[in-house]
Parts: sequence; structure tokens; C-alpha cells
Amino acid sequence: MSHAPAKAFLRALAGETVTPPPFWLMRQAGRYLPEYREVRAGCRGFLDLCYSPDKATEVTLQPLRRYGFSAAILFSDILVVPDALGQAVAFKEGEGPKLPPIRDGKALAKLSLEGFASHLAPVFETVSRLSKAIPAETALIGFAGAPWTVATYMVEGSGSKDFIETKKLAYGQPDVFKALIDLLVQATGDYLITQIDHGAEAIQLFDSWAGVLPEDEFEKWVIAPTQRLVERLKRERPGIPVIGFPRGAGALLLPYVEKTGVDAVSLDTGVPLEWAAKMLQPKVTVQGNLDPILLITGGEAMDRAIDRILSTLGRGPFIFNLGHGILPSTPPEHVARLAERVKAWR
Amino acid sequence: MSHAPAKAFLRALAGETVTPPPFWLMRQAGRYLPEYREVRAGCRGFLDLCYSPDKATEVTLQPLRRYGFSAAILFSDILVVPDALGQAVAFKEGEGPKLPPIRDGKALAKLSLEGFASHLAPVFETVSRLSKAIPAETALIGFAGAPWTVATYMVEGSGSKDFIETKKLAYGQPDVFKALIDLLVQATGDYLITQIDHGAEAIQLFDSWAGVLPEDEFEKWVIAPTQRLVERLKRERPGIPVIGFPRGAGALLLPYVEKTGVDAVSLDTGVPLEWAAKMLQPKVTVQGNLDPILLITGGEAMDRAIDRILSTLGRGPFIFNLGHGILPSTPPEHVARLAERVKAWR
Repeated sequence: MSHAPAKAFLRALAGETVTPPPFWLMRQAGRYLPEYREVRAGCRGFLDLCYSPDKATEVTLQPLRRYGFSAAILFSDILVVPDALGQAVAFKEGEGPKLPPIRDGKALAKLSLEGFASHLAPVFETVSRLSKAIPAETALIGFAGAPWTVATYMVEGSGSKDFIETKKLAYGQPDVFKALIDLLVQATGDYLITQIDHGAEAIQLFDSWAGVLPEDEFEKWVIAPTQRLVERLKRERPGIPVIGFPRGAGALLLPYVEKTGVDAVSLDTGVPLEWAAKMLQPKVTVQGNLDPILLITGGEAMDRAIDRILSTLGRGPFIFNLGHGILPSTPPEHVARLAERVKAWR
Repeated sequence: MSHAPAKAFLRALAGETVTPPPFWLMRQAGRYLPEYREVRAGCRGFLDLCYSPDKATEVTLQPLRRYGFSAAILFSDILVVPDALGQAVAFKEGEGPKLPPIRDGKALAKLSLEGFASHLAPVFETVSRLSKAIPAETALIGFAGAPWTVATYMVEGSGSKDFIETKKLAYGQPDVFKALIDLLVQATGDYLITQIDHGAEAIQLFDSWAGVLPEDEFEKWVIAPTQRLVERLKRERPGIPVIGFPRGAGALLLPYVEKTGVDAVSLDTGVPLEWAAKMLQPKVTVQGNLDPILLITGGEAMDRAIDRILSTLGRGPFIFNLGHGILPSTPPEHVARLAERVKAWR
């Protein structure tokens, strides 16, 4: 009797050096693919796509068929969590998301976990279907936004440049903001555990706006809630690895890795490779970090950058990825070239 | 005969620990002040204000009268450089700057240093006037955008989120982009030397978008041009200190400090204080880094953050500042509270 070898992606997350490294790309299901645009055109709105198991399953699978990624990531959006808590989210064509902003205890009190799971039932159904549909060697990643990043959208009511309203609340009324973060830790934990129960084999926490906070506020609103969330996942669903992506954290990546308990950290484009190899990779698996615009550029500039990442990080526990999501103007053939190059590396 | 003690700001830049530390705030002349808004209302456009020595001098002096900052910074904009090179810049109300984008060698060839100095004559006149008008204990800072950051506006034709066009040019046609950067190194050097000759006593280089580049591109487009610029300033105008502000550089702050030759580095809001004290302050004077939104919040949250910065960085060569520019919604009385607190620190 022999054990089938575990999936390469999960072995890397367990701390193994896998050669060539497993690879996937943030936003690998997306607008750069014509077959995605076709499915998207048949939806009323963006959230409609997230809440349609047929369509969400299909778009998740599309890039796997083309490129043979080592992992599939559930197609969804980080804002389904506030949406399911009762803060209705709207995506208008050509604009970012809009939400009725939450800036005091009264607005916060209207949110509720009642009906949360049933609102998200279509997402869980998508996870179930994906879990059966993906190839045997491919891992399935579930995900959520980290509490801080989701809170910025909830307080600003949209995307933001300065995060003035969120920071005013966090700095000036920390009790109210803490209550919002606590609710998100609870809701996000429930959400991720149910994803795991439907077949997600690893979790990624997207903290896209982690980089805008000063050190002590980063401790309070990025590290502490992530640590609580990871602790609960590890306690209630042991063995499921967690990847954190605190984008723009800079030198704060080190305390993030040391304190949150994540199994892996996803590196944004700006993280220096040798620093990551020396400071982070001895502690956790690292993932990243090709500039998505090098994937638009393609050619030898892209090849050189891929090789540099592979040679600096590929001799330890590593997953190849971008430093940020794929951009819509990316030529699909450049993704094919990247996939070939990573797969051929020894 | 006795030597008058040098200005506190310049002593700190020379590596001295000054107690209490000198302080100024990025965008200290700006929309948060009613007297600024009054002058601004009398101008056709924003650049009109930059090119009017009477008005630019007046708004530069306004915050000194209120708060007794240790330094005045010339009121101008980083985009006067492309404007003077022949790439006309327009600021539309409520929008960012607009420029006819430069994305190939042909567009680049239309730019010229001819007429550059005369176009900027009003700025130099402002520097002259300020040099006579500021209090004896106050230092005068000249400034420019660093080549990379100015180039992003020139290539995008506006502000940007992803810098796709700039990076496509830098990664895909590095020769063309290098020619643009070379022109900017030359023009910016000329510009700063003339500011010094009119009375600027220190220089700050704003590299607001330094943080979006991967390590090896950061070396090419942030570190190398800055190093060339600093080298020329040191050679042609020895004794004038240079402060670099590579915003968002994260762990890349360290090679920036080691390689560019700057005398001081300005820290953005996200730079961890103890890391800066340990890694950067032994090499250069540090400046920063209160979150501008704590200045909006005010009160004890602001006081605590000020104290933490002072106690971590104030025992070495240090200049108190924000981590980013003052925001228009800042209450002027919070700036007064900050000024009192920094001045009272021992």
C-alpha cells in the first residue's frame, strides 16, 4: 500500500520545499480571460456572479483548464461578508463598491449574524461543487478579507485613498471600532469554517490595506484580529493552513509573521526577495511576488523577474504567485509563458 | 567674537541630537488654514499660486506665524519641473493634475531644457524673498519631486493607482524610460542648485510612489537616479543637506539610505519606530512620522502617538514631522497642540 503524495500546494504550505514550486495567481479567474468576460456579461451585477454557484464554479475552473495552476481559489469577493451582515453592497459598472457607511455604534448595531450563513449559502455551494470538480492534484483555496481591510470598506462606504473615516473611528472611538472588528472576527471565522466544511483545503486572508497603519495601530487592527481568527481556525479546524497577505506592511511583515500564527505569508511586489528569504522564509512558507505589470509586459523582462524570484525563494518552502492581482489588460498568452517557465524550473 | 549657533533644523541634519527636536509638517502651508484658502481663492489656478512670488511667499510664511516651525518649505509643486520642460500641466478643480502623457521617444524628444530656468524664475524669486523674510532661527527648505515619482505623472498623464503605463515603459522599453529619467536627473539638479543659490538651506526629495516597485526596479529607478542627483548636489553645492522621502519603501528604506547618500530620510506613517531607530538612525538623521489622521483626531490619541515617536527617535538625530502631508480637514488648533507638545519635550 502506498500513500498518494499530497498535493504540491499543500506540501509547500506544510513547510516542504517543492521543486518546481506550486503556483497560482491572485485573480486568476478574471477579466483578462475572454471566457470569463462572457460569463460575466450574462450576470446582472458582480455580486450576482459571486452568488451563482453555476457561474462562480465555471469561472473558478476556467484558468485551471488553460494553465494547470496548483490551486483553485473560490471565486467570490471580500465584501460578501458585510453584505451578509446586513450592510448591502452595490457594485456599479466602472466604479468601485458602494455601501451605506457605518461610522457609529447605532449603525453598527443594525448589523447582525442572523441570516448570515443562509445569505452565504450559494458561496458554500460553490465551494462544494469546486471541491468535486477540480483535478485531483489541484488544491482548493477558500478566502476572506481580513477584518481591518473589510472594516475600511464598511466605514468609508467605498474604496478610499486616505482612509480618513476609518482611521478617525479607530483612533478617536476605539471602542466602537473594536466592536466592529470583533463582529468581523466572529463573522469571518464562521464564514471560513463553513468554507472548510464544504471542501476548502487552505485559507487566504486578504489584508489589502494593512500597509496604511502606524505600527501600534497595525498591532491592534491587523495583527491582533488576524491572530484571533487564525487561533480559532487552528482550534476548530486543525490541519487547514492559513496564508496571510498584509499588503504594503513593509518591515511590519516580520511581527505579522511572528505573532499571527499564519502558516504562510503572501508578499506584495515591493517586498525585497533576499530580505524575505532571510527574515521570513525560515519561519513560514512564502508566496509571491511578481509585479502584475511584468505579466502585462511579458517577454524577457518578465522571464528575468520570474527567474530571480525562483532562484531567491525557490530553494525553501515557496509558492509562486504575483505580488497583487492580475490586471484586466493582461495578455492570456503571457500567463501561459509564465506557467511554462515556473513548471520547467529545477 | 562668537559664532551664532546654527539653526536647530540644520544641526539635526548634520547629525546632532537636538532636544527638543526641530519640527515642521509636510504641506504645512495648505488648505487647512483659512488664511491659505483666502489667498488661494484669489488665484486662477493652483500653478498660478506656485508662480506668483507674492502669494507663494505669503502662504509659505502663514504657518510659521501660527506655529513657529523650525523650517519653512518653499510653496510649490513637484510638477513645475515637467511644466518647465514643456509638458504643460493643468490642475482642474476637484481633480488631480492632467498632463499630455509621454509614452515614447517621440513625445520625449519634444521636451527641452531650453527656457527651463526662465520658466521657473518666479519660483526662484519666491525662494529669494523667503530667505530674507523667515525668522533668523528658521531654516528654508527647497524641494523637488524625485525623478521616479515625477516620471509617473509624466507617463500616466495624471495620478494613478496601478502605474501601468509607467511600469510598461520602464520594464518594456527601459532605454526610453532611462532617457526620461536622465532628463529629470539633469533638470531636477539644475532646479535644486538654483534654489540653493537663491537661499534654500536644505533640500527634500519627494518620492511619493517609490513604494510600488519591485526591488531590482527600485534600484534602477529610485536609488540610482537619487544617488546621481545627491552626488551632483554634494559636488556642486557642498554643505547643503538632502532629505529623501521614498514613501512606502518598506524594507527597501535600508538600501535607499545606504546607497543614495542622503543626509536624512523622512519616514512614512507605516515605518516601525524601533526598526527605524535601530536600522536607519545610526546611519542618517530620521524625520517623521505621525499619521496625518491622528492630527485630525487630536486629543489624547494624538498626544500618545507624538510621545511614542519622540521617546523612540528623539534621543538621536531627529526631526519631528508627519508621515504624509497635512490633510485639508485638519483643525488648526490640533496643529497648535502638536507644536506645544513637541516644543515642551525634554
